[in-house]
Amino acid sequence: MLQGMQAAFVLYPSVTALDIVGPFQVLSSLPDVECVFVAERAGPVVDDTGALTMRAEAGLADVDAPDLVVVPGSSGAPLPTATDPLVEWLRAVHPSTSWTTSVCSGSLFLGAAGILDGLPATSHWGVLELLRSFGAEPTSERVVFASDRIVTAAGVSSGIDMALALVERAWDRQTAEAVQLLIEYDPQPTVDAGSPAKASDDTMQQATVLLTRKIEIGARHAS
Amino acid sequence: MLQGMQAAFVLYPSVTALDIVGPFQVLSSLPDVECVFVAERAGPVVDDTGALTMRAEAGLADVDAPDLVVVPGSSGAPLPTATDPLVEWLRAVHPSTSWTTSVCSGSLFLGAAGILDGLPATSHWGVLELLRSFGAEPTSERVVFASDRIVTAAGVSSGIDMALALVERAWDRQTAEAVQLLIEYDPQPTVDAGSPAKASDDTMQQATVLLTRKIEIGARHAS
Repeated sequence: MLQGMQAAFVLYPSVTALDIVGPFQVLSSLPDVECVFVAERAGPVVDDTGALTMRAEAGLADVDAPDLVVVPGSSGAPLPTATDPLVEWLRAVHPSTSWTTSVCSGSLFLGAAGILDGLPATSHWGVLELLRSFGAEPTSERVVFASDRIVTAAGVSSGIDMALALVERAWDRQTAEAVQLLIEYDPQPTVDAGSPAKASDDTMQQATVLLTRKIEIGARHAS
Repeated sequence: MLQGMQAAFVLYPSVTALDIVGPFQVLSSLPDVECVFVAERAGPVVDDTGALTMRAEAGLADVDAPDLVVVPGSSGAPLPTATDPLVEWLRAVHPSTSWTTSVCSGSLFLGAAGILDGLPATSHWGVLELLRSFGAEPTSERVVFASDRIVTAAGVSSGIDMALALVERAWDRQTAEAVQLLIEYDPQPTVDAGSPAKASDDTMQQATVLLTRKIEIGARHAS
């Protein structure tokens, strides 16, 4: 039970918006969860399309003991290094969190902070194997609980599933159901190619073209 | 085929973030779609939790011929009236759009603009019946194509399904699959209560408590 908790939703230049808004929509539905958007410095942060600006209400230095952290991914942001301010912040706050989590390529930041050393973790399929060079064991699952408090999710939309799973564990099953109903998360996509295992070669090829384009555009918004 | 199109993503005070970010993440994945966040006036717009500020890059007056419009819902915003600036804008731009769409209680705005008169439409389950007083025929489905260019989606997360269905119709099936793969939309919620038909009475009761709370909080951010 995490009532009274502070949940920190991380932003950085060229963030993928749904990565962070998905878990935020789930967790902000609960009473007594204080949600704060945080970036290196408080202020506007542009997403990886360049079209959406979200505002960080707090700088990293202002949020030094979050109970839950969600790190989103990006198309086009540089690979994280151990000395990135966000990575250093993750290393500092992780020991006292109840949950340290990521969506999409956000898991690379956790890896760069040493949080995933030797642990199973997931990421967007486009960067999954990269996790190995960040110390983790790439695991092709939608949500991976690496420990009782380290959780990584696969690409973009998977953060919704991850956040509901967190609610189920930290609160209870019926609360997760109630939040699912509140956000009417009863998925009925008319197509069924949402993971590499389900996609045809042609679909994978087209998705790779779209991803390459997104990374090129994202790189322009990454600083 | 809508290449070269302009897609307008509407913001207003106390918007529900995932309502608009879901379709945005889908549609911004496509080449040659210009995405613009628009509000009554350009500038920051606070969501219905009070925790997330998104910026409208354009005012309504700056976007006078969008090809696609997405109107999100809200917890706590006042019911729309025929003379609301957003409703008047919808009435003005709708005749020349390729698609006029809504997510969640966004359909009430389409209704207030007279766009849904006599047509089937959906919304969040909490306000579905209200659609009747806005001229529409409430239809309890996740995505409702009322015509070849008027589309409404159910609560919050349903906008992702709607946007993928739009891509399938306006582009083709494989493009919808490629976008689905790009955002790794292979839903695997660990709970299965995402619609009133699937939820127990206890879950529905708890969701209603959460919804009531959200509306109270949203109302504080609605002006």
